[in-house]
Amino acid sequence: MKLEMICTGEEVLSGQIVDTNAAWVANTLMELGIEMQHRVTVGDRMDDLVAAFQERSKYADIIIVNGGLGPTSDDMSALAMAKAKGEELVENVQWREHLEDWFARNNRVMAKSNLKQALLPASAVMVDNPVGTACGFRVKLNNAWLFFTPGVPFELKHMITEQFIPFITEEFGVQEKSALEKLLTIGHGESSLADTLSEITLPAGIELGYRSSMPHIEIKIFARGDSAIRQLSDVTTQVKALLGCAVVAENRPTLAAEIHHRLYQSGFSLSVAESCTGGMITSQLIDFAGSSSYLHHGLVTYSNESKVKVLGVNPQILDDHGAVSIQTVEAMAQGVRGILDSDFALATSGIAGPEGGSDDKPVGTVAIALATKHGVYSQMVKLPKRSRQLVRSMSTAIAYDMLRRALLEEAVIVDYPSIPRFAK
Amino acid sequence: MKLEMICTGEEVLSGQIVDTNAAWVANTLMELGIEMQHRVTVGDRMDDLVAAFQERSKYADIIIVNGGLGPTSDDMSALAMAKAKGEELVENVQWREHLEDWFARNNRVMAKSNLKQALLPASAVMVDNPVGTACGFRVKLNNAWLFFTPGVPFELKHMITEQFIPFITEEFGVQEKSALEKLLTIGHGESSLADTLSEITLPAGIELGYRSSMPHIEIKIFARGDSAIRQLSDVTTQVKALLGCAVVAENRPTLAAEIHHRLYQSGFSLSVAESCTGGMITSQLIDFAGSSSYLHHGLVTYSNESKVKVLGVNPQILDDHGAVSIQTVEAMAQGVRGILDSDFALATSGIAGPEGGSDDKPVGTVAIALATKHGVYSQMVKLPKRSRQLVRSMSTAIAYDMLRRALLEEAVIVDYPSIPRFAK
Repeated sequence: MKLEMICTGEEVLSGQIVDTNAAWVANTLMELGIEMQHRVTVGDRMDDLVAAFQERSKYADIIIVNGGLGPTSDDMSALAMAKAKGEELVENVQWREHLEDWFARNNRVMAKSNLKQALLPASAVMVDNPVGTACGFRVKLNNAWLFFTPGVPFELKHMITEQFIPFITEEFGVQEKSALEKLLTIGHGESSLADTLSEITLPAGIELGYRSSMPHIEIKIFARGDSAIRQLSDVTTQVKALLGCAVVAENRPTLAAEIHHRLYQSGFSLSVAESCTGGMITSQLIDFAGSSSYLHHGLVTYSNESKVKVLGVNPQILDDHGAVSIQTVEAMAQGVRGILDSDFALATSGIAGPEGGSDDKPVGTVAIALATKHGVYSQMVKLPKRSRQLVRSMSTAIAYDMLRRALLEEAVIVDYPSIPRFAK
Repeated sequence: MKLEMICTGEEVLSGQIVDTNAAWVANTLMELGIEMQHRVTVGDRMDDLVAAFQERSKYADIIIVNGGLGPTSDDMSALAMAKAKGEELVENVQWREHLEDWFARNNRVMAKSNLKQALLPASAVMVDNPVGTACGFRVKLNNAWLFFTPGVPFELKHMITEQFIPFITEEFGVQEKSALEKLLTIGHGESSLADTLSEITLPAGIELGYRSSMPHIEIKIFARGDSAIRQLSDVTTQVKALLGCAVVAENRPTLAAEIHHRLYQSGFSLSVAESCTGGMITSQLIDFAGSSSYLHHGLVTYSNESKVKVLGVNPQILDDHGAVSIQTVEAMAQGVRGILDSDFALATSGIAGPEGGSDDKPVGTVAIALATKHGVYSQMVKLPKRSRQLVRSMSTAIAYDMLRRALLEEAVIVDYPSIPRFAK
């Protein structure tokens, strides 16, 4: 089955909007084992739309068309499709009634322009959109089914999941069963991961993929067919055994999601004192609703005075060892933990750059500590030649991993091959 | 001049990477008045690349091809171009010497595979890449110049700015002089901005554009040609007069950048106490190198206990008025300002949702305060029907704007049409 996509809209073509819809669709279908083959992006010009529909339908079996289903004059996907096929637009009575009903339910008056959204090419099959006013539809032209979807990401995702995937499964009957395991790793480069995993003999139907989203690399273990799916769990166990402490989460989008989930369920409380990470540890957790149940506070004590006044760090420690030191970051973690007697506390202090480094402590030097009710754990790592942003996000990931390991009652500090440490 | 783009690479097509290169190129050229007309995205398959080059070169005058210039086997742009034109790959001696020199300078041994990067189609004109090992080039096929650029964003940006734009300026001679003013606004919807500005009679050659990047809408005032450029400043003044306090920055990408710039230059210090914004006010400033010169600390006092212990908020205030109240947020701002006697302090407390609302204070209720050495200013706004993320980013923008206005010695609190306030 040859799958293609046609994205429409001036804003996407001109770069006013980054096309996250296209990436989401391709990625979602890839996880089902269906590969995107080709993508065309055109603006709101009738001739370009008609030409793209006519041209690509010669090659593809199925084309997802995204956008241009709204009520305004620059929404022209339905009309362009009708022209491409040489047929008329016809009002779809079912969708007109749906629109009237939708506006009545929302106590709003329907503008005349909205009626346009019920006009479909004569040969179109309507595709339901239970979450919006844009009607989906599909039309056969040349070799291909063109499947029209709304540009609003939320509506698109519903339609792909609930309508498109069942349609192609039935229409093309090609979709084997598949399953996917995702492992989030830190501290290894992609080639180092691939080298390590090269000693596994993969059963037929199982493939490994890598996706870099720094500070993480995600490993996808993809199984196609019943036999491969039965062996997926064994292969996953092998991969985890070979990678050891590099694997920090299973089937989670980020390490912050893993930490949120574990803390939320554990009943333990957390406080954070950040310097170089600048609030990143705290704010990635606050992104999740429910974080208030465990997060006492996150104090970005950027200045030395703040470390002394707010966290109670002894000024002598700062004088003797500097702000970026094991001693300071341990005092920060213990200080912030003590304020509300939290179960755990994380602290960071480092040189994110591009200025501020010295020979002893170059840019990328970061001290990280975890305090518990029973003690404090710390390390000072070297993250040279990274951007300011990456120094901060890698430091955040290491801090989260220290907490994660403490929650699992494992050794808090471990070696990551690509992240050297200062001797203590 | 018809400009198109062909993006190559499995990772971009399959959605492993969101195609920010395409958006950057289109947006950069749009700001010069050159419109992107069509974009094709293909994977690393020879037939698809050859077909795209042959097909699109019939329609376009110039095609930017991005990616596929690296040393590995899935980098096949040069070979595909040679096949599309029916010619051989030929070693470019100048680039081979450049590669040898580059590796020697960097004390690295050149792998044999890198020599591939000096192989160009026979009729290609080399395009210099002073910041990487991938050689750019251009080839004429059918109606079009195909202009090959590296996939690494940093290298692409150099090549577009330093090589591509001068080339099309000379080759097509079409580029009139142009100039652009960008105004960042908050508190108005796009249609409200457009309505307000409809009373300006725009001189020939001047166009207005809108770009929504919530919580902001950016207005672009684009002038093409000498006469329009001379009138750009007048039009900008008119726009600003009509929009009043909606305009919060000029030619800055974000309001945080504006605040960073003003604080950095002013010598004033800032402290922040955040609840619902969860560190966003602090972390957007820490993104900028140099923020340590003015930022004392940013305390995310998420729990009531933390507001009392860390900021010194009187527990009676929390009992009487609740955490989300004018009284609490004023006490937070005054408390955090007092710790290190900062010149300014911002504080937020609100209900970001999706849970936690009440009839009195529904989700989207946010109290925001600014404390100075001379007093405290506060307001409680209503941001209903927004996502958790948007409640937080709009609250951050309003807090920044209060500080911005204080730094300008203007009224701290103003009316934004789309953001209602609770009566005090």
